[in-house]
Amino acid sequence: MHYVELIGTAVFAITGVLAVTRRGLDVIGALMLGIVTALGGGTVRDTLIRAPIFWFGDLNYVWAAILGALAAFWIGSVFRSTFRALLYLDGLGAALFAITAAHKVLVLDFPGPVAVMMGVLTGIGGGLLRDVLAGRPTLLMSREIYATPILLGCTAFVVLQLIPAASGYAETAGVAIIFGVRALAIHQHLEMPEWLTHREN
Amino acid sequence: MHYVELIGTAVFAITGVLAVTRRGLDVIGALMLGIVTALGGGTVRDTLIRAPIFWFGDLNYVWAAILGALAAFWIGSVFRSTFRALLYLDGLGAALFAITAAHKVLVLDFPGPVAVMMGVLTGIGGGLLRDVLAGRPTLLMSREIYATPILLGCTAFVVLQLIPAASGYAETAGVAIIFGVRALAIHQHLEMPEWLTHREN
Amino acid sequence: MHYVELIGTAVFAITGVLAVTRRGLDVIGALMLGIVTALGGGTVRDTLIRAPIFWFGDLNYVWAAILGALAAFWIGSVFRSTFRALLYLDGLGAALFAITAAHKVLVLDFPGPVAVMMGVLTGIGGGLLRDVLAGRPTLLMSREIYATPILLGCTAFVVLQLIPAASGYAETAGVAIIFGVRALAIHQHLEMPEWLTHREN
Repeated sequence: MHYVELIGTAVFAITGVLAVTRRGLDVIGALMLGIVTALGGGTVRDTLIRAPIFWFGDLNYVWAAILGALAAFWIGSVFRSTFRALLYLDGLGAALFAITAAHKVLVLDFPGPVAVMMGVLTGIGGGLLRDVLAGRPTLLMSREIYATPILLGCTAFVVLQLIPAASGYAETAGVAIIFGVRALAIHQHLEMPEWLTHREN
Repeated sequence: MHYVELIGTAVFAITGVLAVTRRGLDVIGALMLGIVTALGGGTVRDTLIRAPIFWFGDLNYVWAAILGALAAFWIGSVFRSTFRALLYLDGLGAALFAITAAHKVLVLDFPGPVAVMMGVLTGIGGGLLRDVLAGRPTLLMSREIYATPILLGCTAFVVLQLIPAASGYAETAGVAIIFGVRALAIHQHLEMPEWLTHREN
Repeated sequence: MHYVELIGTAVFAITGVLAVTRRGLDVIGALMLGIVTALGGGTVRDTLIRAPIFWFGDLNYVWAAILGALAAFWIGSVFRSTFRALLYLDGLGAALFAITAAHKVLVLDFPGPVAVMMGVLTGIGGGLLRDVLAGRPTLLMSREIYATPILLGCTAFVVLQLIPAASGYAETAGVAIIFGVRALAIHQHLEMPEWLTHREN
């Protein structure tokens, strides 16, 4: 599991930097935006639940984020040709991190809805911070289907966790829902449907 | 008092979502922006003063924020017709939350100026976070009279608290000042006066 | 040392407000942006490392930030004529705060890379928060040489700290590197070189 998380961290940094790379961005800016994307969500989560910040105790997360950010900056064109593959990996990373986070919060005896909210925060927080620091519109203002699968999957995980007969499958189901819905959205270029979107002005 | 706070939370979420609703915003984005507006200021305050996050222990705040956000998204036109009434309620909510926060900080034995700053943070923090995540100019860059009454009321509350003969009225006076000045500003369409505003370039 | 830090805090508030002052900014907005610039980085750092927020226990930092912010707002033209001198002072302040922060983090037994990251966060965090709240592009998206010297100096400090023969000079060397490189960048109008900057689109 640990290696999977490190790969997920590096992928978050790569997609994070690729999303903001543009003329005039320098390597230090890219490095910091990559680190923020990869580590930001979990950092805010640990701050709120008063757990030790996860990367303070395991610097491999920092090295993975740095490697990913520098790779995206220096050899970004390599990744651009495989950008869609990266999007799927990014979705898988978000699924793993969100469910791991929701699980961690439940273990610390917080109520279920807090676990769902911390799962979503972990999955999208780093990207939100990156967008704000880069002056980009955040995904909250778009119809991209990114937060929705995380919300669905974390809710399913928390509910299944409560059902004795299902709790053994809760994590797998949560990850599968997040990754499944996100992968479908990437593959089919889905956006949030009209009836769930504001249409005026 | 508790019901008043829940109503205030829902109103924060409603005005928060109405302020950012525009073509293309989807229901999940609205939900998250409403929650951030309603709970964000108090969450940052509790993080800084190391108090338990207030809504972790009382999920009714979360349900109130969710209800308010969804109502503003789905039946926003209902609220738009009563938008000015909502603005007054929002001002009353900000007054209650700010003074309650300043009181909480004093009880924890922090010095008065910290209580004032945490009161202001509680009153405007959620709106600032919402604006940043929604890509809107924050109220700090406008001449809107929103932070000023909160600053005045919290200062009055902390000072009166120190005067034995007045301390019994400190909370009432603080709330009255914030709501009074804010209501006057709404009613008279007041902005910060020229001499308190930068005029160059 | 303490007076130097208070002067540094005031200078951060002054340069912070001068950077955002424009037609329509009112005195309360300027005050808050100045406080955020001066105290924001250290506040986030103390939150992450779970140290008491530095200004809760020493309100002189708050008064210094308020004085600096109000001075920049009311008599900004005085400072504009000495703006380049202020830039050097700002660089010196950033150097002192970053190295002091890295030192504090090492003393609390966090690993070296965490000390570097918290040093950088302390040096640039307040400015980033200010830019985000003011709706300005952050320095991460520019080629300005501001974060880079802080990163270099904090890294040098942490490495020298580990070498018995050099540890006595680690703080001085760290401050000298940050201030030296920053001063050179100000004096020569240096930007990040082309080969460290993205050139496409």
